[in-house]
Amino acid sequence: MTADRAKVIRLLKTARGQMDGILKMIEDNRYCIDISNQIMACQAVLSKVNKEVLHAHLSNCVLNGNREDSEEKLAEIAKILNQLL
Amino acid sequence: MTADRAKVIRLLKTARGQMDGILKMIEDNRYCIDISNQIMACQAVLSKVNKEVLHAHLSNCVLNGNREDSEEKLAEIAKILNQLL
Amino acid sequence: MTADRAKVIRLLKTARGQMDGILKMIEDNRYCIDISNQIMACQAVLSKVNKEVLHAHLSNCVLNGNREDSEEKLAEIAKILNQLL
Amino acid sequence: MTADRAKVIRLLKTARGQMDGILKMIEDNRYCIDISNQIMACQAVLSKVNKEVLHAHLSNCVLNGNREDSEEKLAEIAKILNQLL
Repeated sequence: MTADRAKVIRLLKTARGQMDGILKMIEDNRYCIDISNQIMACQAVLSKVNKEVLHAHLSNCVLNGNREDSEEKLAEIAKILNQLL
Repeated sequence: MTADRAKVIRLLKTARGQMDGILKMIEDNRYCIDISNQIMACQAVLSKVNKEVLHAHLSNCVLNGNREDSEEKLAEIAKILNQLL
Repeated sequence: MTADRAKVIRLLKTARGQMDGILKMIEDNRYCIDISNQIMACQAVLSKVNKEVLHAHLSNCVLNGNREDSEEKLAEIAKILNQLL
Repeated sequence: MTADRAKVIRLLKTARGQMDGILKMIEDNRYCIDISNQIMACQAVLSKVNKEVLHAHLSNCVLNGNREDSEEKLAEIAKILNQLL
């Protein structure tokens, strides 16, 4: 991985903390809407991580990779776009 | 929370396992695209949890709640729709 | 429909104008990324319309509807949340 | 644009037909949920167009472009991923 390692790890630990929080909310029988909001907050942090990872990938691995690998790498990006669209 | 507790906890533990896996992938310097796919898989599990929580909320809390609370409860649902749209 | 009729029609006409623009861009063989951005702009306007329609629905039809219809109406909302999550 | 022109135009005309249908539904004062579903169907067709356009772009413009333009082209893709994530 070529992304900013420290930033990615910090974000993932935040997301893991949120997830432990959600499990605690379930145990404590908290209000559904509060749980739902916390789930979406955790997904938003994961999206930030994904942006970091994919941007670093595009500007490092793809740009500086061998020309021969480009086709496969662009197909991988196309597959990810497919899932998001 | 009124959702199927056991199912929700099982899904959340799956998601937490995936998250630990992602942190390990970062440490092991794994390929960006594999990390990105694992992040999206974890988000998909969280979406499943959110569906469970919100469906249970709609069919229990909102439907059987006091008529007086309905306005506030529908405003909460509207806010969630807003974030998703 | 109970949403602000004038606002919804204005937004939809904007979206239709954007769509005609996209068809023109295809004919003129414009750059893919510009077309893609215009498609996403059009989808964003449609999301605004959807927000208007669903918010009005929640605060009018659902809130003021007969108690007997509530179950069906909440199931409809649950189905929409399902598609968005 | 390098996508399958005939397919893209056919899909866009479908989406434009759906949009005219939505405007008619508003005029006819149709049920909010039916309008909302039609809006999401139209957005789904636009997503199909966007996939076509971006896949063709990745496999033609980016892959076969000059090595010098690659950085700018990958930055454009990164920007689109940013909006989707």
